[in-house]
Amino acid sequence: MPELRKDAIMDRWVIISTERGKRPHDFVVEPEVSRGGFCPFCPGNEHTTPPEILAYREPGTAPNTPGWRLRVTANKFPAVVMEGALDRQGEGMYDKMNGIGAHEVIIENPDHLTTLATISPEGFVDVLKAYRDRINGLAQDPRFNYALIFKNKGRAAGASLEHSHSQLIGLPIVPELVTEEIGGAKFYYNYKQRCVFCDIVRQELQQQVRVVLENQEFLAICPFAPRSPFEVWILPKAHSAHYVNLKEESFQQLAEIFSQTLKRLEKSLSGAPYNFVLHTAPIREPDYPHYHWHFEIMPKLTLMAGFEWGSGFFINPTPPEDSAQYLRDVEI
Amino acid sequence: MPELRKDAIMDRWVIISTERGKRPHDFVVEPEVSRGGFCPFCPGNEHTTPPEILAYREPGTAPNTPGWRLRVTANKFPAVVMEGALDRQGEGMYDKMNGIGAHEVIIENPDHLTTLATISPEGFVDVLKAYRDRINGLAQDPRFNYALIFKNKGRAAGASLEHSHSQLIGLPIVPELVTEEIGGAKFYYNYKQRCVFCDIVRQELQQQVRVVLENQEFLAICPFAPRSPFEVWILPKAHSAHYVNLKEESFQQLAEIFSQTLKRLEKSLSGAPYNFVLHTAPIREPDYPHYHWHFEIMPKLTLMAGFEWGSGFFINPTPPEDSAQYLRDVEI
Repeated sequence: MPELRKDAIMDRWVIISTERGKRPHDFVVEPEVSRGGFCPFCPGNEHTTPPEILAYREPGTAPNTPGWRLRVTANKFPAVVMEGALDRQGEGMYDKMNGIGAHEVIIENPDHLTTLATISPEGFVDVLKAYRDRINGLAQDPRFNYALIFKNKGRAAGASLEHSHSQLIGLPIVPELVTEEIGGAKFYYNYKQRCVFCDIVRQELQQQVRVVLENQEFLAICPFAPRSPFEVWILPKAHSAHYVNLKEESFQQLAEIFSQTLKRLEKSLSGAPYNFVLHTAPIREPDYPHYHWHFEIMPKLTLMAGFEWGSGFFINPTPPEDSAQYLRDVEI
Repeated sequence: MPELRKDAIMDRWVIISTERGKRPHDFVVEPEVSRGGFCPFCPGNEHTTPPEILAYREPGTAPNTPGWRLRVTANKFPAVVMEGALDRQGEGMYDKMNGIGAHEVIIENPDHLTTLATISPEGFVDVLKAYRDRINGLAQDPRFNYALIFKNKGRAAGASLEHSHSQLIGLPIVPELVTEEIGGAKFYYNYKQRCVFCDIVRQELQQQVRVVLENQEFLAICPFAPRSPFEVWILPKAHSAHYVNLKEESFQQLAEIFSQTLKRLEKSLSGAPYNFVLHTAPIREPDYPHYHWHFEIMPKLTLMAGFEWGSGFFINPTPPEDSAQYLRDVEI
């Protein structure tokens, strides 16, 4: 019997087709073939990207030259642009504004083929700190109200360049899905006087059926109503609305559980493409008691088709209890 | 300068990257190669599908044998199942229910390679009438509150079988996106005392920049804030909330504009995969003054990536004004 499951925070339903019960090898994953050719993100090619906004580099090396461990630049083909005013206006009954915003690329490490599944522990910490540093950087510009960190890995997940990188889009408006998520969490808080994510952490630790990994400060779970097979969320156990408030000494633990999760996904799903998104409170907002930052990782194994476009439901052929067990058991 | 545009009904923003301005041949469309092999939808193979629920057939031919022009059966691999009770229940803090529903396949015509872009005018009318007849059929079952008609064309759009077919999913709950759309339309109505779709029809006919086709009763437009390049909506000019109330004599005009639209999309986009969805009021609801049935056609030319998953925004590299002009001008 298929199951309709509701996301704990959003008004989003998922159909878990328990009878199909797809296992990792049931998904056809097209192997990602190295594309070769010129790479603007490799050391020595710094002049082919916009100038760097941030870099973690060896002492004594000059900006926009080799010697960096991690490098952030503006996106050369931005979805939104820095210059100009919002200029909200109508066109008859319709509404529009200028596409103002920041679009940055976080080049995660100098080596062309190193990914977040193979990067060193220190390298992963660099990436996670760069997310924090660039969100804090954007918060200096009063035009921005949200900073969205995400990663597209693999061509089918939207990556146009192979060299491992994440992206940051700063926006003047808080995106609808973020508003909805915070609204959903607030609704729960108003009713229960507890953070819904703290309750998820508690229930998952108690049930132990959807837990992938755990360490002292963090938890990786397959969520109860996942949109995609093998979807994984990584949450801090302690309540906190803002990623940027993560303590200096906690980055190493976050890097450890994140790296382990990606290694396990990579091994289980033969390197399937994926997206991940950092969910965190809007910049300049207080440390909400009802919201709790976390990462959501979505492997690209299924399609959005007519039913999903029409209903907003997702059809997921793999129960998260099965996904979690595969990810726990896989040998890496 | 990219433009942020808001959908007129939903709280959904689209970034139109006017500078990239992609034209039809900028999209890489993988040619759909005929897959050959056994087809359960071809005449003579009726015994390999579940028994027919509806068929338009030549007089004197028996059910589940050849002689049909169009045939509807249960989906052999349904996402939801007919037997059982909803059985809403909790699992700790989470909510779930049984996946009860109807999942039907509308086999649009007997010929394996005929598509909705090449089907005869009478054949297209059959398809549109079958949509009506099956929604009315499901309305007889008091467990169902919504009937969603959709089509996946091409493998990348989610079609697992090549023989041209549409699908119907009947559900006990009104899907979230439908509720949101009707809610958005109601909000507009409460403010203006006019149907938002009627206003769209009026403004588009006046502006004439996003109109693809028009006949006496229907209008095909590229919507102001399209999620996908070459997205097209087909709307009746006269107000009506329920597709099933379409007058017998209007089907021919709807088939004509729908067929012309698909022919133009097919020619412009080299047969790109697409999804379409019928948006209509929930069964058993009154003929709302604020809602207006229509079809939404979405070619599969772009990807959902991290930014879309995180924000709910869509990035669309082709302004609808350009899409509409291509579709008007293309020779078919």
